[in-house]
Amino acid sequence: MTDPKPAAILVIGNEILSGSTQDANIAFIAKRLAARGIELAEVRILRDNEAQIVETLNEMRPKFRYIFTTGGIGPTHDDITAECVSKAFGVPHEVHKEVEAAMLADYKKRGIEMNAARLRMATMPRGCSLIANPISGPPGFRMENVFVMAGVPKIMQGMFEDVENMIEGGAPTLSRTVKCNQKEGDIAAELEAIQKRYADIDIGSYPHFFQTPSLSLVLRGKEQARIDAAAAEVEAMIRAHGEEPVAG
Amino acid sequence: MTDPKPAAILVIGNEILSGSTQDANIAFIAKRLAARGIELAEVRILRDNEAQIVETLNEMRPKFRYIFTTGGIGPTHDDITAECVSKAFGVPHEVHKEVEAAMLADYKKRGIEMNAARLRMATMPRGCSLIANPISGPPGFRMENVFVMAGVPKIMQGMFEDVENMIEGGAPTLSRTVKCNQKEGDIAAELEAIQKRYADIDIGSYPHFFQTPSLSLVLRGKEQARIDAAAAEVEAMIRAHGEEPVAG
Repeated sequence: MTDPKPAAILVIGNEILSGSTQDANIAFIAKRLAARGIELAEVRILRDNEAQIVETLNEMRPKFRYIFTTGGIGPTHDDITAECVSKAFGVPHEVHKEVEAAMLADYKKRGIEMNAARLRMATMPRGCSLIANPISGPPGFRMENVFVMAGVPKIMQGMFEDVENMIEGGAPTLSRTVKCNQKEGDIAAELEAIQKRYADIDIGSYPHFFQTPSLSLVLRGKEQARIDAAAAEVEAMIRAHGEEPVAG
Repeated sequence: MTDPKPAAILVIGNEILSGSTQDANIAFIAKRLAARGIELAEVRILRDNEAQIVETLNEMRPKFRYIFTTGGIGPTHDDITAECVSKAFGVPHEVHKEVEAAMLADYKKRGIEMNAARLRMATMPRGCSLIANPISGPPGFRMENVFVMAGVPKIMQGMFEDVENMIEGGAPTLSRTVKCNQKEGDIAAELEAIQKRYADIDIGSYPHFFQTPSLSLVLRGKEQARIDAAAAEVEAMIRAHGEEPVAG
C-alpha cells in the first residue's frame, strides 16, 4: 500500500488557519483519489503568503505525482495562488487570451463589466492548460503536475470533474469496516499480528467516544479478497473476545 | 500581522487522508491560538508513516515556535507518533514511570489489565513533560516546542486546556466581519486600496454560494480601533455601491 509517488493537496487561505472556515475540500478530494487508486500522502494548509506558497510548491513538485491546490484564485487582493504558481515555475504570468474572450462573452450576456480585478482571474502561468469550471465563471488551470482549483467547495467539486479526465490512477482503494465495543488495549496485540500477516492491507483502529459500537477497525487495500480474508480474521478475533462484530 | 516565528499543526493519521474521517481538531486549535495571539502559519496532515513523520518533525521544529500534533498516541499498531517524536529528537523511547504508575492505579480501580499494548501509551521520549488528560486515560506530552496530543477531538480538547498553561501568546487576534451582496469583482480594487492603507490588518474576501449576504469581508488584527477604522472604510465603500452592509 505504498505508492512511490503519491499525491498531495495544498489548501491555500488565511480563513482555514484562523479557524473561521472549516475546510470541506480535503475529504472530498481524498475520497475521489481513493476511488481512483491514487494514494494521498500529505496535505498542507498555508496562508495567503507568497513566499511560503512559492517555496512550498517548489518543495512539493518533485516529490508528488500530483498536487491539487484549492483556494486563492478569485479577483480580490488576497487571491494570490495563480501568481505564486507562475513564480514557482519561473514562467511569465500573463492574460490567457482564450479565457479572457470567454469571460468577455459571458460578461456581455450577464451585463457585468470587465475590469482589472476580474482580468486577474484570466491571468495565468504561460503554458498552462485549463480546468473547466461548470459552476461559475473562470476556469482553473493545470501546470505540469499542479492542478489549481477554486476554494469554494461547489466550484472546486465542479472543477474536479474535469481534473479526473487528466489524472491516471491504478486499482481503486477498497475498504471495509468492522465495528465492535472492544477496548483498543485488549485487542491491540492480536490486531497487530493480523496486520503483520497482511502487509498489503492497512488496518486502522479508531475509537469513538459516546458511540456504540465504540471502535471502528478499517481495512483498506487493493484486493477485495485479501481485505475480506483479513476482515474474517479480525471478526474471528472479536468473537473470541465474546462479542459479535458488526459490519460498518 | 506577520509573526517571525508562528505556530504549526501536524495532524497524523491515515483516516484523514483517506477521507473517511473529517478533521475537527484544526479549527479548534486555530481558534484557540488566535484568541491567545499566536499566529498559525501552517498545517500538515500526514499518514501513519514513520519516515515521513520523523522527517517532517525535524523540518518543522526549527521553523515554528510551537508544533501541535494530534493523533497516533493510542495502544494499537497504527499509533506511532510517540516513537516518531523520540526518533526525531534522537532520545531513548522509554516507559515514563510516573505515567505507568498512574495507569496501573487507574486500571486497578477499573478492573482493566495492563499489557504490552497499553504500556505503549506510557512509553515516551526521555526528557518529555506531561500534558494532562482530564477526559480519559494516559496523558499527552511535550518535548521542547512539540506538543503531542490525542486525535479524538474530546480528548484533544481536554489536553489543550493544559497546553494553554505552557504556551505564551501576545495580544489576541481580533476580527470583525462585514457582509454584503456585492460581487467580488466590483469592489476588488477599492478593497485592495483599503488593505494597502491598513498594513496591520488582514482583509479577507470570502464569497458564498446560495447564501445571502453572499460575500463576507473579514478584517483581522491586533488593535480594535484599527480594525474598526478599516471596517468603517469598507462599509462606506459598500454604501457607495448603493447597498447597506450588515455586521457579520
